[in-house]
Amino acid sequence: MQVEIITVGTELISGQTLDRHSHYLSRECFTLGIPVHYHTSVGDHPQQLFEVMKLASQRANLIFICGGLGPTEDDLSKETLAQYLQEELIQDPEVVAHLKRFFQKRSAPIPINNFKQSYVFKNGIVFHNEHGTAPGLAITKNQVTYILLPGPPRELKPMFETRVRPFLLEKLSTEAKIVIRNYSFFDIGESRLAEVLNDLIRESKNPLLATYALEVGVILRATAFAKTEAEAESLFASIEDEIFKRTGNYCYSTENESLEQVVFRLLSKQNLSVAFAESCTGGLLSHLLTTVPGSSAVLKGGIVCYTDEVKASLVQVPHDLLKRYGAVSFQTAKALAENTRAQLNADFAVSTTGVAGPSSAEGKPVGLVWIGLAEKGKTTKVYRLDLNGSRERIQLVAAKYALFILQQRLKKGELLK
Amino acid sequence: MQVEIITVGTELISGQTLDRHSHYLSRECFTLGIPVHYHTSVGDHPQQLFEVMKLASQRANLIFICGGLGPTEDDLSKETLAQYLQEELIQDPEVVAHLKRFFQKRSAPIPINNFKQSYVFKNGIVFHNEHGTAPGLAITKNQVTYILLPGPPRELKPMFETRVRPFLLEKLSTEAKIVIRNYSFFDIGESRLAEVLNDLIRESKNPLLATYALEVGVILRATAFAKTEAEAESLFASIEDEIFKRTGNYCYSTENESLEQVVFRLLSKQNLSVAFAESCTGGLLSHLLTTVPGSSAVLKGGIVCYTDEVKASLVQVPHDLLKRYGAVSFQTAKALAENTRAQLNADFAVSTTGVAGPSSAEGKPVGLVWIGLAEKGKTTKVYRLDLNGSRERIQLVAAKYALFILQQRLKKGELLK
Repeated sequence: MQVEIITVGTELISGQTLDRHSHYLSRECFTLGIPVHYHTSVGDHPQQLFEVMKLASQRANLIFICGGLGPTEDDLSKETLAQYLQEELIQDPEVVAHLKRFFQKRSAPIPINNFKQSYVFKNGIVFHNEHGTAPGLAITKNQVTYILLPGPPRELKPMFETRVRPFLLEKLSTEAKIVIRNYSFFDIGESRLAEVLNDLIRESKNPLLATYALEVGVILRATAFAKTEAEAESLFASIEDEIFKRTGNYCYSTENESLEQVVFRLLSKQNLSVAFAESCTGGLLSHLLTTVPGSSAVLKGGIVCYTDEVKASLVQVPHDLLKRYGAVSFQTAKALAENTRAQLNADFAVSTTGVAGPSSAEGKPVGLVWIGLAEKGKTTKVYRLDLNGSRERIQLVAAKYALFILQQRLKKGELLK
Repeated sequence: MQVEIITVGTELISGQTLDRHSHYLSRECFTLGIPVHYHTSVGDHPQQLFEVMKLASQRANLIFICGGLGPTEDDLSKETLAQYLQEELIQDPEVVAHLKRFFQKRSAPIPINNFKQSYVFKNGIVFHNEHGTAPGLAITKNQVTYILLPGPPRELKPMFETRVRPFLLEKLSTEAKIVIRNYSFFDIGESRLAEVLNDLIRESKNPLLATYALEVGVILRATAFAKTEAEAESLFASIEDEIFKRTGNYCYSTENESLEQVVFRLLSKQNLSVAFAESCTGGLLSHLLTTVPGSSAVLKGGIVCYTDEVKASLVQVPHDLLKRYGAVSFQTAKALAENTRAQLNADFAVSTTGVAGPSSAEGKPVGLVWIGLAEKGKTTKVYRLDLNGSRERIQLVAAKYALFILQQRLKKGELLK
């Protein structure tokens, strides 16, 4: 099987939108063992799209077509493919029902344009869209399979995960299972990780190893080919010890979890609670933890103490401490964490105070961040970071570091309860 | 002139590396007024690359080829193009000298492979590489211009800026400017917006109009072609009244700002402050505002009151109110906003309380969100939202709505000061 990925949209070729789908689908195909040979992007231009489809059908036998399934008049992927394949489109009552429910929930009438999305290939199959109105579609003709997916990433990715991957696995009908394990790392760069594991990455064939940089952190993805889950498990086990021996402390999850998910899991397992006092991260730290369902069981709350006034009034940081050391200091980080923990009656509290930029503050450089970790009955610890990058990047990395520090503490196990 | 961008490298089609060059070059071409029609990515595979070049030369007359200029054996872009065009490569003494200097600086001998990079088209031109060893190349044959650029972003971008853009401008020798205006909308879907503006989008040729969905909200992009900025301005003015008449309240910016940037601008212009009390958004609302540089001047702070305990202790919401109406209620939203405003001594306070899911709470459905807006000396207003989607989506849309409500209030102008 040979793959071509076509992404459709004038926003792509005019440079308005970065095409992430080709990258995402290529990686997914790679782990399924299906080689991708071409990516093509083309605008919302039916004649050009027609030619691109024709060419792709000559050089690939599995073709993804992403985008152009929307309700507007320039969304023509499905219609163009139907024309190219000379295949009929018919209205699907299930999709109509889905559209009705979708807009009913929003207490809105169905825009007339959206009905266009209820037409599907008579000889094809339909992938239900849980997060939007356009269904995904697949059709096979002349030994070539075409898979049409909606353009918005929040629709395409879950659809691939829950509908398209199983469809491909069945098509591949390999006996071998593909089992993937993701080792998630923080506080170590991708090139450093690749260096430390260089010989393993080169030599290990099953599981295959590859590194991927995340927005923050790095993934080592291990892909095992095995007859059973148990066999895959033993393949992972054969290299895992060595990986951990070389990189142990930097690996925070083998289950593809985010740092906030790991912190939530560790806290709730031990029935512990946390509170936050955020200056430079401005609420991001609390927000990250609250993205995890059920987080209200472990998060007491947080205080966004963005001004000295609020640091003093709501968190009782003494005015003379703020005056003597400044808001961005070891001392303030410590007081913020300790007072917040006591005030919100939590087992832990984490504080952040720093200079997110773009200008320096208190004569302190952009990127300087202090993180306090207070714990019931223990001495408060304070960490210093010197970060780089944009304001948003510094806020994000500081918040993730705060979670990483808490995770390192929680995983040690010797806890108070 | 019609452009095709070819990116070369097995790391691209295997999903290891995200192709950012096509996006970057497309945007640059767009602002130069040269339309890009296709992106193609292909692996380090000479026969496939040959075919891709051949096809591109049939459908474009300006072709960028990025990557495959490195020193290793699978770097074959230049050699493949030379073969396709039947053009001679000769060693360039200036590039040899550059290579020598480059490795001398690093106190290293020139690897023998790197000499390959000193070969250039006999009938072409050379773009000096300040940040690496592979020069960029351009050659024109049969009215088609081919531009080869090195793959590493830190080499490609400066080379484009300092060498390729001037080369293109000279080739173009145009007089017309391209001026873009982005109209940002919230609380109206893309299809609804396209429906309301349908005739304008169809008929207006200058400026051209197109809608793009954002993660939250929609952009209407107007692209004007004019001799001067003033002329472009009058082209925008010619349709702007009509756009605002039909969609006025939903448009929150004509300057490509985010809602948080607009709220920051409106607050700081009028020297007003805000505070937040966040339950279901868990700190996201505060975080969004603090992504804006200088936001400490308008944001007093925030309280993430994730538990009833904290709603009562830190924000003084009466226990019996929480008991009678629940945390997710009109009454709690109102009390959270009012008490936080008073406590943090802010001109405004915005509160959020709702059910982010995935499970319902207090017998209330997932997606129900109350937003309170308290204002010094005025009656507090409370808004009810019924949102859809994942937990993260509900949190994000609730936070953006809260900003949108504040923006609507601030833009009215009849403020307290």
